[in-house]
Amino acid sequence: MAEKGNLLIAQSGGPSMVINQSLVGVVLAAREHPRVARIFGARHGIEGILKEDLIDLRKEPKGNLEKVAQTPSSALGSVRRKPTEEDCAAIFEVLRRRGVRWFFYIGGNDSAETVHIINEAARKARFELACFHIPKTIDNDLRQNDHTPGFGSAARFVACALMGDDLDNRALGGVKIDVIMGRHAGFLTAASALARTEPDDGPHLIYLPERPFDPDRFVADVKAVYDRLGRCVVAVSEGISDAEGHPIAAKFIKETDSHGNVQLSGSGALGDLLANLVRTRCGIRRVRADTFGYLQRSFPGIASEVDSREAREVGEEAFKAALGGRHTAGSIAIRRRPGKRYGVTYEVVKLRQVARDTRSMPASYINRAGNDVTQAFLDYARPLVGTLPVKALLKGVRA
Amino acid sequence: MAEKGNLLIAQSGGPSMVINQSLVGVVLAAREHPRVARIFGARHGIEGILKEDLIDLRKEPKGNLEKVAQTPSSALGSVRRKPTEEDCAAIFEVLRRRGVRWFFYIGGNDSAETVHIINEAARKARFELACFHIPKTIDNDLRQNDHTPGFGSAARFVACALMGDDLDNRALGGVKIDVIMGRHAGFLTAASALARTEPDDGPHLIYLPERPFDPDRFVADVKAVYDRLGRCVVAVSEGISDAEGHPIAAKFIKETDSHGNVQLSGSGALGDLLANLVRTRCGIRRVRADTFGYLQRSFPGIASEVDSREAREVGEEAFKAALGGRHTAGSIAIRRRPGKRYGVTYEVVKLRQVARDTRSMPASYINRAGNDVTQAFLDYARPLVGTLPVKALLKGVRA
Repeated sequence: MAEKGNLLIAQSGGPSMVINQSLVGVVLAAREHPRVARIFGARHGIEGILKEDLIDLRKEPKGNLEKVAQTPSSALGSVRRKPTEEDCAAIFEVLRRRGVRWFFYIGGNDSAETVHIINEAARKARFELACFHIPKTIDNDLRQNDHTPGFGSAARFVACALMGDDLDNRALGGVKIDVIMGRHAGFLTAASALARTEPDDGPHLIYLPERPFDPDRFVADVKAVYDRLGRCVVAVSEGISDAEGHPIAAKFIKETDSHGNVQLSGSGALGDLLANLVRTRCGIRRVRADTFGYLQRSFPGIASEVDSREAREVGEEAFKAALGGRHTAGSIAIRRRPGKRYGVTYEVVKLRQVARDTRSMPASYINRAGNDVTQAFLDYARPLVGTLPVKALLKGVRA
Repeated sequence: MAEKGNLLIAQSGGPSMVINQSLVGVVLAAREHPRVARIFGARHGIEGILKEDLIDLRKEPKGNLEKVAQTPSSALGSVRRKPTEEDCAAIFEVLRRRGVRWFFYIGGNDSAETVHIINEAARKARFELACFHIPKTIDNDLRQNDHTPGFGSAARFVACALMGDDLDNRALGGVKIDVIMGRHAGFLTAASALARTEPDDGPHLIYLPERPFDPDRFVADVKAVYDRLGRCVVAVSEGISDAEGHPIAAKFIKETDSHGNVQLSGSGALGDLLANLVRTRCGIRRVRADTFGYLQRSFPGIASEVDSREAREVGEEAFKAALGGRHTAGSIAIRRRPGKRYGVTYEVVKLRQVARDTRSMPASYINRAGNDVTQAFLDYARPLVGTLPVKALLKGVRA
């Protein structure tokens, strides 16, 4: 394994604010390594391999790469596609012809599944290809990981948004419902709680996909907060589901991708449904709903520092693992060091340990009533998000 | 007019990221001035006066005030209420009893109308009250002003959001529709164009309330861009209206405020309607819509520097005008200094010159086809928004 070879990297799944840090982490490490000859980037994930739509990542000026690293979204383009057997054969044909020995794929659980499928197929085909998955997901739902690159920055966006939105709601009152991304895992919605600094700060209610959503209970919760404070801010995950596990939003939405996921984002339907429920059942006049949508994964200039650094490092670690020779396949998992001071270590885990199935919020992060998070969650999430912007209320001494 | 007196200040209408700068501008100037005795802040605009819900703004620590200045939304609380004759009489009773001689109200055209009504009523009642309006509106639609405090920061949010969203759309393709605030004036939606740095950057189409919205034309425009680029990003104002002037969104929304404004924000209905139109009429599968909602006026930590400074200065200027003795009533207008280097001057204008009616985008800022902005608009808006975050695409040399 000491001879030279070529490397190919691609990105897959939903973009994040820091996914390009991982790309640049691999590319810059590879450019320094004596065994790596050519460095290919495939456009739009495995589709770029199939179409041989490849770019030469040695030709990127370093200064530009560093700017790309700070730029949100997937610079190589992305895709949501699960490879079939024929896809794998076609992929290997291209990779063989291009002399690729190291394959890196940055993405979430579905992307890990893609790498797993390709890895298994490569073994069967006796094609010597190192297959590495580099974690990325704003949903924070990859198994084996304490947290995932992309989450801290998206969580920072959500916390900032709720901070501002709660201040807005203080000014004009009424009920405000914010719909936040997260299909099965409530981590990102839960991050809304990081916005709270005062006892009466919102979000006052947080609904997660981990607990069945009961519309009657929701209406009663909102009414109780509104009666107490004259206002109410609610954070709701787009993935909230009824007791049978059917997403509330799915009543409106038909579309699915090739991994079988229902398309929940990019529509205001769930927020409007919940707002109407409050309007008609609580008799409150001023009820508004916003759906944060794609902003929370792609807003520029506000990425979490910790998240940016770790996203770079998982790329570098994946490269080290692949070139180190001890592993021919795997994914990099982030583990948190025990102790009070925040720190992480990286480990190589098996692809099937992170592929397909996801994890959800542990029960210890959700309050008993199922409408808020616990201190344990706040302690967990705060270091990932970094210091939030300045915020102060007037002391308000009565005159 | 050389004896001492008390001052009262309040905030009204939609919050902004920098409205508290104006509040703090008045308060800090007043705290230094020998003729000002007490400084009252009324909670929730004129409702706070009517309920005598007042706070003592001399008791606010200066350090806290400076933090409040950087905090989005209206720290005193806001209201949307047009005063009746009886309201004015009740307001004067409170103000007389509290020895108030100087009244400041921060807000948009409706708030200017409120000040105008109060000023006229005060003259009739022979109540010696200086009445000053301090401009604020993210819509940028106050007459007499080159631009208004709050716009630059909201425009910065919109430009950043579109920058990120266009990168997101590059990664996954399809059509993305972003619905942006602005009832009659398209300035904020137009600011989406500031995100563009590359020839094929989005937003590729911009629809403003100043031009009649034709669904057939819209569908044809989107299809043309999609056929050319394989993707399309659209910025649409929430206030787009048909040829008869009926807002497209109003078909879904019934609510109005006491100034007679239809409630357009806080619902995803318009975005979803347009997305469905594209989905069914163009046969494009991946179509998404996001409605930016309240985030664009209250997101913390990203305010434009120019906007923050000017918001502070309009407060200080209003205070100077009121205490200077040359004016008993008025509004502060921002004028742009001629010449290449950006700079402004402040002028006192009559309340009726800014009250009620608003201005729209001049024709020179809108392209002939009515689906984009011109270079003149970009030149106008860029200094108000400041430098945008780092963004770079891969050079992408084919391998």
